Amino acid sequence: MPSYQAPVDDVLFLLNDVFGYEKYGNLPGFEEAPADVLEAIVREAAKICEEKLQPLNMSGDREGCVRQPDGSVKAPKGFKQAYDAYREGGWIGLSADVEYGGQGLPYTLGAVMNEFSSAANMAFSMYPGLTMGALAALLKHGSPEQKQLYAPKMISGEWTGTMNLTEPHCGTDLGLLKSKAAPQPDGSYKITGQKIFISAGEHNMAENIVHLVLARIEGAPAGTRGISLFIVPKFLPDAQGNPGARNGVECGAIEHKMGIHGNATCVMNYDDATGFLLGEANKGLAAMFVMMNEARLAVGIQGLAQSEVAYQNAAAYAKDRLQGRSLSGPKAPEKPADPLIVHPDIRRMLLEIRSFNEAARALVLWTALKSDVAHRSGDEKAIQAADDHLGLMTPVIKGVLTDKGFDNAVKAQQIFGGHGYVGEWGMEQFVRDARIAMIYEGANGIQALDLVGRKLPKDGGRAVMAFFNEVGAFIKTHEGDEDLKPMLAPLKQALGQLQQATMWFMQNAMAKPDHAGAGSYDYMHLFGLVGLGYMWAEIAKAALARKAADATQASRMDAKLATAKFFMARVMPESAAHLARITSGADTLMALPADAF
Amino acid sequence: MPSYQAPVDDVLFLLNDVFGYEKYGNLPGFEEAPADVLEAIVREAAKICEEKLQPLNMSGDREGCVRQPDGSVKAPKGFKQAYDAYREGGWIGLSADVEYGGQGLPYTLGAVMNEFSSAANMAFSMYPGLTMGALAALLKHGSPEQKQLYAPKMISGEWTGTMNLTEPHCGTDLGLLKSKAAPQPDGSYKITGQKIFISAGEHNMAENIVHLVLARIEGAPAGTRGISLFIVPKFLPDAQGNPGARNGVECGAIEHKMGIHGNATCVMNYDDATGFLLGEANKGLAAMFVMMNEARLAVGIQGLAQSEVAYQNAAAYAKDRLQGRSLSGPKAPEKPADPLIVHPDIRRMLLEIRSFNEAARALVLWTALKSDVAHRSGDEKAIQAADDHLGLMTPVIKGVLTDKGFDNAVKAQQIFGGHGYVGEWGMEQFVRDARIAMIYEGANGIQALDLVGRKLPKDGGRAVMAFFNEVGAFIKTHEGDEDLKPMLAPLKQALGQLQQATMWFMQNAMAKPDHAGAGSYDYMHLFGLVGLGYMWAEIAKAALARKAADATQASRMDAKLATAKFFMARVMPESAAHLARITSGADTLMALPADAF
Repeated sequence: MPSYQAPVDDVLFLLNDVFGYEKYGNLPGFEEAPADVLEAIVREAAKICEEKLQPLNMSGDREGCVRQPDGSVKAPKGFKQAYDAYREGGWIGLSADVEYGGQGLPYTLGAVMNEFSSAANMAFSMYPGLTMGALAALLKHGSPEQKQLYAPKMISGEWTGTMNLTEPHCGTDLGLLKSKAAPQPDGSYKITGQKIFISAGEHNMAENIVHLVLARIEGAPAGTRGISLFIVPKFLPDAQGNPGARNGVECGAIEHKMGIHGNATCVMNYDDATGFLLGEANKGLAAMFVMMNEARLAVGIQGLAQSEVAYQNAAAYAKDRLQGRSLSGPKAPEKPADPLIVHPDIRRMLLEIRSFNEAARALVLWTALKSDVAHRSGDEKAIQAADDHLGLMTPVIKGVLTDKGFDNAVKAQQIFGGHGYVGEWGMEQFVRDARIAMIYEGANGIQALDLVGRKLPKDGGRAVMAFFNEVGAFIKTHEGDEDLKPMLAPLKQALGQLQQATMWFMQNAMAKPDHAGAGSYDYMHLFGLVGLGYMWAEIAKAALARKAADATQASRMDAKLATAKFFMARVMPESAAHLARITSGADTLMALPADAF
Repeated sequence: MPSYQAPVDDVLFLLNDVFGYEKYGNLPGFEEAPADVLEAIVREAAKICEEKLQPLNMSGDREGCVRQPDGSVKAPKGFKQAYDAYREGGWIGLSADVEYGGQGLPYTLGAVMNEFSSAANMAFSMYPGLTMGALAALLKHGSPEQKQLYAPKMISGEWTGTMNLTEPHCGTDLGLLKSKAAPQPDGSYKITGQKIFISAGEHNMAENIVHLVLARIEGAPAGTRGISLFIVPKFLPDAQGNPGARNGVECGAIEHKMGIHGNATCVMNYDDATGFLLGEANKGLAAMFVMMNEARLAVGIQGLAQSEVAYQNAAAYAKDRLQGRSLSGPKAPEKPADPLIVHPDIRRMLLEIRSFNEAARALVLWTALKSDVAHRSGDEKAIQAADDHLGLMTPVIKGVLTDKGFDNAVKAQQIFGGHGYVGEWGMEQFVRDARIAMIYEGANGIQALDLVGRKLPKDGGRAVMAFFNEVGAFIKTHEGDEDLKPMLAPLKQALGQLQQATMWFMQNAMAKPDHAGAGSYDYMHLFGLVGLGYMWAEIAKAALARKAADATQASRMDAKLATAKFFMARVMPESAAHLARITSGADTLMALPADAF
């Protein structure tokens, strides 16, 4: 059985030491959560994830969700009880608006909870996760009445939410969607169509489910400009706002899928279901994008989360499992063999995972703090800068953290040898679960295109220039610092390569857009490397300061410094290959005629 | 439902055009298979794999193997019939000794069949695959009586074989194994112990199963020097050589695993089972290594096979699925969207897979031909050179082809978006099946250590020098060829990097063996890059010649040349990162104390 211990100390170190959490103290929500309260909440979050969610992870995978003949769906054993505990603890509304019953705490805390809950039980965490995504769109685009009706129930977790985008013939290209909305005399719509891959689409954990559904109003233009967003509750709220008549929506089937078996991924059939327009007609895609951005960050966090829990189990196994002798002579001569951890190649795998995890967590928390600034600050300039950062980093976090999260789950599984391939240790589940995060909420190739095609050129490149300036300034400021030298030289080189790649796009992609598409995936990963490398430089700086201030933390901080050095020596060299591929352009990709594939 | 078409034309092109198959015509076995016979056999191999094995791949995965309460195991529906057709077609004994009823054809043909059958149905192909592995050890180390008794039945497929190495507490480190063998007055042994992860351990497809089992004779030395190999038949052969009394071996459980569900991976319990010593006492590990080398090549081929079948399905989907518009303007304006294949990033994934597949197949066939020379030539020098090549390339083929095969299955799955994550299209099965190949027959980290620790220094580096010389000579010979220029420059650079890395180990690993362990995995992949790059250079040369000689083949050959260029521009740049990591040494890996992980 796998285990999980939420990385509380690392979160607190990052927030307090690296990002100066106290600097945010005057923002709404942060006032209620000074450092000591922050710590208490993070510890509580860890507790419920470790004690209530994690023990259901493997059983939930084995049991899966079961659709009953009447179309209802049973979540795995224990999920309902865990969900009740989760929502009663106020975790769903942790950072939600106080006006609708939320706790109004920083989104950053929500991001922490996202990581812990996804690591403990990814399939479970998607039920409240989807609710949060739907809520974001509702709060942004809903009428006051809609918000009053739905938001409190969703924030309390009494009702859950879903996002209904994909249809059998269209996922990425939503302009093709066919679901129809027929206007009714009372202002409502009748929604008809089929949606697939709907996470948390149907289950027995909440008394109602609020489906947000993209559909085309009769007569609307074809393509993306004719898509509207609708609220389609499973039970239509009655006059008191309680679940009333059953609506014409049901789960037609549960998808037979590779992982996240504990989450009900449904085919949803809408048959003259009553829906209520959310936001403006024909502006549904934009409205949906609000929740997609939040959801993309959350999915990036899922990648980190699977990587973290896989690491913890692999590290424990490597310290415990006796196999072979160290190349430099026995390290445990009293035992029949040395533990796996003596072997350099085992350490390589563990350090590749770990050096990603800590930096990725930093990237997430840094970005989460920016999100809090963007949404809570009163300072226009600060808001703009934070918004820029958020837009730029969202595709990087989604794409890079899920790609690497999956790779890392595979590496952690490898450390177990054959025991990683069988179900017993839980390692193969992490791989199967992590795999979806590279696909949903915009496949990673789409994230790369979003980064290169939209986020780079936006506002004349303001966001990316700000990022380059920040990293460049850090390097410059600390260039004389001997202790930081091993971190700064590789970072400087990679930053230079990223800037070259950016310049290359500016010079070449206008004339030939395929050049952008051909290099986008490598660019996203090069960006990720620089982002993670910068995080390591910041972590190293904070670790040196902490160590100097508090000798009791020396060995913990030394571990961070050693991991930073590993990242620089072993992971950063990848940057040159990314640049070479980007600047090789599109020609070798486009040369082959389609029918030769 | 996924489909599969065996790459017959590519195999024939590689054997005939690239490797000059006719040059081998005077070797035993090749005489019986001149080019036209070769083609006929390859086409027949394709036919049975496409028509009998592939249709059972998905159903076999879903149904799995079922252990009955009496310990017997039922293979999935249709497997028995397919197996009968397979063995009656003579495919199991294709390249086996004529003396024992085999067809004596080149091992190279066996390697081709390995690829086709693994691509069509990996779980199925393991039943005959394990038989071949066990047979290799039997023929090498068995007494004349043992060979007469078992070999004909195994070659005909009436009996299957298994390899029993792993125990719950030891996989890689077989020196720890505990299974015991008690000598009996009649010269036989009583074997007692538990083995796990035993592929094809028990099933209903053959009338008997010949288990080869590693165990320790009572009183034998501890560690690897006290291990012996035993033949433990499920049914003890009677005086006529037919299955007689049931032996004390049974399947205790079927492992619950990530993939290859159609193969019965068993916990095997030996309880005073009668076993017969195979080869010398206490030399069991060496005897087992004979089959492990053959098995490692076969496993490398499995990686290629999953990559090939995944590619075929992804390419078909990319040409068919309409989603989005080309960045350079609509390519199918009459349709609601362009096919996926117009998008550079989709092509990137497909070409990464394809440029691997064709070169990996070349590497396999090149090495298979060397194996035929090593085993069938009369020329001592040729045998030595071929043996050197075989020893050197076995870990590279096993490690690199399975790592990349898995990565490629993941990429192919990605092209399907959400449809790749659900079972319907079969893509997630390729991923789950491909995953095991990185683990069994020596996890890939072990392959890397074998390469760096054993194969490089062997005979004063004779094998690796010969490889460097061959690649270097090719580059030199063709340096003036304008058409080959795009292939030669990157190859030359990577070869230089591989030579630098080799030199670095020579200079540093003696003093500090951890340097070898720390760089071994990157070295294996750098070696693979050079090997695959060299194959592309050879393929390009042959393609240019073929195109010049036969205009009808121009577009097919142009596709190969375009793919070669892609490989050079997009895949080869990885070589520099490998070198950087290798030469960064072990220090950043060993710095962290074990308890800090």
